[in-house]
Amino acid sequence: MGNMLVAQSGGPTAAINATLAGVIAGAKLEKKVGHIYGAENGIQGVLEERFFDLDSKIKNWEDMQMLIQTPAAFLGSCRLKIKDDGQIAEIVKILKKHDIGWFIYIGGNDSMDTVYQISKYCDKEKISGLSVIGAPKTIDNDLSETDHCPGFGSAAKYIAETFAELERDCNVYTQKAITIVEVMGRDAGWLTAASVLSRINGGNGPDLIYLCEAVFDTEKFLDDVKTKLSEKDAVLVAVSEGIHTADGRYISESVQTRGVDNFGHAYISGAARVLESMVQERIGCKVRAIELNLMQRCAAHIRSAADMEESRMLGLMACSGALSGESGKMAVIRRICDEPYETVYTLADISKVANVVKSVPKNWINPQGNGVTEEMVKYLKPLIQGEAYSIYKNGVLGQLSR
Amino acid sequence: MGNMLVAQSGGPTAAINATLAGVIAGAKLEKKVGHIYGAENGIQGVLEERFFDLDSKIKNWEDMQMLIQTPAAFLGSCRLKIKDDGQIAEIVKILKKHDIGWFIYIGGNDSMDTVYQISKYCDKEKISGLSVIGAPKTIDNDLSETDHCPGFGSAAKYIAETFAELERDCNVYTQKAITIVEVMGRDAGWLTAASVLSRINGGNGPDLIYLCEAVFDTEKFLDDVKTKLSEKDAVLVAVSEGIHTADGRYISESVQTRGVDNFGHAYISGAARVLESMVQERIGCKVRAIELNLMQRCAAHIRSAADMEESRMLGLMACSGALSGESGKMAVIRRICDEPYETVYTLADISKVANVVKSVPKNWINPQGNGVTEEMVKYLKPLIQGEAYSIYKNGVLGQLSR
Repeated sequence: MGNMLVAQSGGPTAAINATLAGVIAGAKLEKKVGHIYGAENGIQGVLEERFFDLDSKIKNWEDMQMLIQTPAAFLGSCRLKIKDDGQIAEIVKILKKHDIGWFIYIGGNDSMDTVYQISKYCDKEKISGLSVIGAPKTIDNDLSETDHCPGFGSAAKYIAETFAELERDCNVYTQKAITIVEVMGRDAGWLTAASVLSRINGGNGPDLIYLCEAVFDTEKFLDDVKTKLSEKDAVLVAVSEGIHTADGRYISESVQTRGVDNFGHAYISGAARVLESMVQERIGCKVRAIELNLMQRCAAHIRSAADMEESRMLGLMACSGALSGESGKMAVIRRICDEPYETVYTLADISKVANVVKSVPKNWINPQGNGVTEEMVKYLKPLIQGEAYSIYKNGVLGQLSR
Repeated sequence: MGNMLVAQSGGPTAAINATLAGVIAGAKLEKKVGHIYGAENGIQGVLEERFFDLDSKIKNWEDMQMLIQTPAAFLGSCRLKIKDDGQIAEIVKILKKHDIGWFIYIGGNDSMDTVYQISKYCDKEKISGLSVIGAPKTIDNDLSETDHCPGFGSAAKYIAETFAELERDCNVYTQKAITIVEVMGRDAGWLTAASVLSRINGGNGPDLIYLCEAVFDTEKFLDDVKTKLSEKDAVLVAVSEGIHTADGRYISESVQTRGVDNFGHAYISGAARVLESMVQERIGCKVRAIELNLMQRCAAHIRSAADMEESRMLGLMACSGALSGESGKMAVIRRICDEPYETVYTLADISKVANVVKSVPKNWINPQGNGVTEEMVKYLKPLIQGEAYSIYKNGVLGQLSR
């Protein structure tokens, strides 16, 4: 009887533990699974053999609910980039040592590359009895092959609600003022686009939306703001952290460069702040930069019920795929219909997912490059529906500790 | 038959409209009230006679619920400072012209000063038939005479929940990292203190808490951080925006001064950012500054049920006080007991409230100046209890538009 290993990686989301709950639920249903182990801190914990028993950790319904509503990776995360086949061989040796028959890795682009590398290695070396399956996770929503990514819907709900609240806040005074809100997204503007959902009940929402997929022209931006200012007092602007000029230079780079992370990504922040200074200097009215910062990815208290259901189901799908002998795949959602919203769950070839970034289609951005189309709204709307069931304790959301 | 006028002022909160709802409900119960008018943009709208009929705006139960859950001042706000008795005379003339018998002003310190000025003027000029009553409102929780202020509990709940979520987020990696979170509060650290409530269910919460009531010593701060870093990987710090050195210089002043607002308050921001640079330079590890910014005052989606109930009751109290002929008072909460939590509502003399700032008592800050005491926890805990009833529409909290 083999054991199952599950690990989590990449940046935190409010849904990654719902996927873990799906994996555990799926494994507990199957008699052929011995232990369900969790590896601490992703693939780094695998290499360091830091495994612990999830069977005894999740004992009842309440443990499971607490796991689901706990934000950020319950098992811990890592940003370790696999170096070479030597490291892969080491991982496989460790998995074999612990009699792991099924390894589920929940994560984003870089984690899916790890799944790809391990499964390719097993194929090449003709290693049998080890299924490696990925389960998607990223608030960036930039994984290919899946209609959207677990964690994105909850972050999008936070963004939609926060912009609706900020709009009210910014409109209480009669003074001319500009508020520039920076949303996460280096290479994909999906999350920034979700700010449009703050209009869903008739509100005005952001007056201007700039995604990182469109070239950002600072003069055009200043003109857009001036035009809006001539029409109303409070102007609300949404920008992706990754907005950049025609020559590929990030707007944020004008103030800081702090080198690159382990994956070669440039560390950037502060696009809104750069624009704030620019507006102050060139337009001269009251202006405020807001970064939604880490809050947008860990706001467990405003999880989307749709996202929770899908995240859990994708965990189940990854688990059942592994148990049926599939390997080198990622569990995905395919959309059948926008309204009524209908989807199916299936598996996609991991080679098509690894290291591919799914950007916002150019034709979902308006011709002026300062807003999104109705197509985008149709795509986004189902993902934020419903308020996830939550148990509060003493006024704060209950969590499960490791 | 006289009319009632109600207005809102100061910075937005998630509870100010619950107080407005209380005033309206109270006035609707009394047959002697003709119209219930709302003045747009506070005392500024009074001076400009921008009144509208709240009777026809709030027609049924759902309108009332939507009003209660709408963040920021439904009637709009202002930051107008009353200049002199001439302006007061003008206000009183306008109130008389519109046959206002009762004027309820919902706001913070500056608004309570306006209530004080008008009622003093009426006394002096022997103007009868005009009751002027204040209803407290401020996330800063710095009004005197009342145990705490409407809006504070909901902001505190947001802070508690957000710190609990940020703690999880910051702890997913094994890397040494410092996260410095800046909380609103120029002269009072109540809201920053509320970060301690993130420990309420056994979590660690912020490792260090610096309130603006204690002198901030940057060398001591760096030592505190270094000590914590030697004990654990992720260090979470809460700081008030108004932290300052022994000579009264704001930490944020090292980067910016943008003059003063209409009330002579210095415009400040960026304490966390100053500390971020300092840590980067002097300690050199990964560090991130987060500003909770406007989100902490308008997060209607995580309103405290206790705060909602109290905010509504204080509106009712202000209204019934006015209708019974009281003037120059503010509706207040007095605490009878922490546990079980028990309070009474009454009226306090406005002269004792106007322009007084209630700071955190020094003995509720720990001797090291980097945390708060159990007394503080006892005081804060009841204020964030319960999750307010909310109606979502299409995945976003429903709001009432003016």
